[in-house]
Amino acid sequence: MFAKDTYINRRKALKEKVGSGLLLFLGNDESGANYEDNTYPYRQDSTFLYYFGLPYAGLNAVIDIDNDREIIFGDELSIDHIVWMGNQPTLHEKAQKNGIDITLPGKELKDYLDKAIKAGQKVHTLPTYRPEHQIKLWNLLDIRPGADTPSIDFIRAVVDMRNHKTEEEIKEIERACNVTADMHTTAMKVLRPGMHEYEVVAALEAVATANGCSLSFPTIATINGQTLHNHYHGNIVKPGDMLLVDAGAETEMGYAGDMSSTICADKTFTPRQKTIYDIQVASHIAAVEALRPGVPFLDVYELSASVICAGLKDLGIMKGDPMEAVKAGAHAMFFPCGLGHMMGLDVHDMENLGEVWVGYDGKPKSTQFGRKSLRLARPLEPGFVLTIEPGVYFIPELIDYWKGEGRFKEFINYDELEKWRGFGGIRNEEDYLITSDGARRLGKKIPLTTEEVEALR
Amino acid sequence: MFAKDTYINRRKALKEKVGSGLLLFLGNDESGANYEDNTYPYRQDSTFLYYFGLPYAGLNAVIDIDNDREIIFGDELSIDHIVWMGNQPTLHEKAQKNGIDITLPGKELKDYLDKAIKAGQKVHTLPTYRPEHQIKLWNLLDIRPGADTPSIDFIRAVVDMRNHKTEEEIKEIERACNVTADMHTTAMKVLRPGMHEYEVVAALEAVATANGCSLSFPTIATINGQTLHNHYHGNIVKPGDMLLVDAGAETEMGYAGDMSSTICADKTFTPRQKTIYDIQVASHIAAVEALRPGVPFLDVYELSASVICAGLKDLGIMKGDPMEAVKAGAHAMFFPCGLGHMMGLDVHDMENLGEVWVGYDGKPKSTQFGRKSLRLARPLEPGFVLTIEPGVYFIPELIDYWKGEGRFKEFINYDELEKWRGFGGIRNEEDYLITSDGARRLGKKIPLTTEEVEALR
Repeated sequence: MFAKDTYINRRKALKEKVGSGLLLFLGNDESGANYEDNTYPYRQDSTFLYYFGLPYAGLNAVIDIDNDREIIFGDELSIDHIVWMGNQPTLHEKAQKNGIDITLPGKELKDYLDKAIKAGQKVHTLPTYRPEHQIKLWNLLDIRPGADTPSIDFIRAVVDMRNHKTEEEIKEIERACNVTADMHTTAMKVLRPGMHEYEVVAALEAVATANGCSLSFPTIATINGQTLHNHYHGNIVKPGDMLLVDAGAETEMGYAGDMSSTICADKTFTPRQKTIYDIQVASHIAAVEALRPGVPFLDVYELSASVICAGLKDLGIMKGDPMEAVKAGAHAMFFPCGLGHMMGLDVHDMENLGEVWVGYDGKPKSTQFGRKSLRLARPLEPGFVLTIEPGVYFIPELIDYWKGEGRFKEFINYDELEKWRGFGGIRNEEDYLITSDGARRLGKKIPLTTEEVEALR
Repeated sequence: MFAKDTYINRRKALKEKVGSGLLLFLGNDESGANYEDNTYPYRQDSTFLYYFGLPYAGLNAVIDIDNDREIIFGDELSIDHIVWMGNQPTLHEKAQKNGIDITLPGKELKDYLDKAIKAGQKVHTLPTYRPEHQIKLWNLLDIRPGADTPSIDFIRAVVDMRNHKTEEEIKEIERACNVTADMHTTAMKVLRPGMHEYEVVAALEAVATANGCSLSFPTIATINGQTLHNHYHGNIVKPGDMLLVDAGAETEMGYAGDMSSTICADKTFTPRQKTIYDIQVASHIAAVEALRPGVPFLDVYELSASVICAGLKDLGIMKGDPMEAVKAGAHAMFFPCGLGHMMGLDVHDMENLGEVWVGYDGKPKSTQFGRKSLRLARPLEPGFVLTIEPGVYFIPELIDYWKGEGRFKEFINYDELEKWRGFGGIRNEEDYLITSDGARRLGKKIPLTTEEVEALR
């Protein structure tokens, strides 16, 4: 937890930004996996954490701007709870620690909202992302699932604050990044041909746990790196394979790290692997060097994509002008995802509030395949924290699909591409802070080039 | 996955047991932690797994007994899904593998149910335990959260089948138990004074992952063993402490293991620790020796509790007749939880279907403190799989609460008890199968006595 004043000042700034009405914050409850009490690791809503710093289930909160009241709604523990869960400060004490003086029983929230609405106050809500939030809105405000109209003023105020990381946040994110880096170097050290993917997962996730962290997202560790969100870990890593690892730690306060690496199963990469790897690294470095305030991240994305196209052109897989290929969308055959995303209390920071607000400042997103997956496009500002993660992927299903349609024949040499069909995929990912005049990598450096990876094998 | 016939035969038996109507199975969806797409590890509903064997999100199923139809409702993958998640068999192919020939788009379920209700069919539902189930029932059947009336016939039929484990299930549970045992012996080997609890957690959870398993429940690893469900892992283990570990593996098919152990931080236990430990072990062994078909588990619970009372009487902490103390409920000061629970596809098997059906065969549960936490009381039958986990706990809050009320002064010597206030808690737990003439421990043996634990330190 940060100091009390951090939370008081954040709420004060938020009130000034929104101006009037009542802000409703729905906290996260415990979430049962296969029965109610067999719960997943508890995770509080990040916006709730940001403004109230209370990582406990069963809470909701109100900032009543019009009446200058801040209230936590939730229930105190019974003796049964204390026997099973241990003694704890009261909810009132916990709330006071973060500058909130009023706590009320959970069931009084509906009454409070009813009165506010009767008095003509506007109730501002944020987008829901858990079924329990939908049930809360249905019960509290008679809004059916999917029929809610989140407050744009509320969203924009939260996004504007959370997008600009403070010094104390950056310190916490660096802690997450340092643990994340150790997870990756551990994977590089333990991997041997013949292991199951899940044995590498066990080793790298243990690094997070042994540092008092959790995971900021489900670990990817796959010999099928071309499958972008592959959470299957049951394959055996064979000689000649590459293992793509995308994993990160989350600190106890909820801040995320997020890095990727691609590791050779053997002591060294094959020349063929090195060829594609070098293209990924060139794209990665070009992107990092372009980071500075004022530069639209869309431009950085296009630059990194054009470096990939230029590299593939050298191999005869692509043809034509690289930047023209990118503008047309042909690069998405090999790089169908974004270049990076904001990172903070969520690994895709504030994804639940809407990428269009977080990464586009309200401007419309492209609907072009590939480009539509870009989560961040806006001009960069000091305090933004983001990932850089270009990748080069050979996706058999996509090759067949585009080839069948004859798509982008002017940029893609399908005959040459067929020779690379089973190659797999390569991604390396680092985390950066935008500074006043450039960017700074967060956390320890992990191996980026083939030579650096091989040095750890 | 088991062979196709297992699922076909289970559904056939279920249809015969319930007799008529339409059985609605709500599958589990992905569950977002801090935004929709940052999902917890996916877990299908266990009853859905039991009858359909499909561990995938986004499904619901119907067994229409009256019209002899079995249908999976869910949607096929788009090209976008395949690019991000990899190529897979179609839903139809997956369903056919388990003997289901009809798959329909998810949105057709409501229409199917509407028609069934119009035709006068009874729609049987099971109790809900996830908010998403409540929303489904609200949308599909217009039942508000908390207002559903689950079908007792449906519940009893499922419970009767799932309570009696088959040979192939027992084999799978033994696999979970073997990995679980390795998790505990690993904890015993790595623990050193000065470590954080979470460092031990990292080591033991890595054993589950490295064996292709997940966790069957959130790991307990605490120097405050007297706190029964303590998921905090941030303490440093000091010389003289004991670390209570309660942890288990879940196989890829969803079957659980669940064991507990109490480990000395030093090479050996102190004489004082050994005194209480021996009482726990005596209680544990008495319970195991009493296991056989026909014996009510309530009797085994009372027996194990009376052994604890007798041991504490020898120390002067309790007085009077041990079994009378148990009947009155005085033992619950030291043993406020149950002796064990059914275990299978859920670690507390079918807890979401209602313990009164699973563990009490519909008979009422006691409301007495301590006894009310007993999840299992019914006469044992061959095929039942259950845990044995008596414990001896010194809970300061409970001591103060009962002492203040002067409760059970005829059985508890509060002056003597004060000398043990900060002792902590001890639990050891194993898993057993009830056989035709007794019981068999499942999985490798983990150290149970102080001597056995010390041998691994």
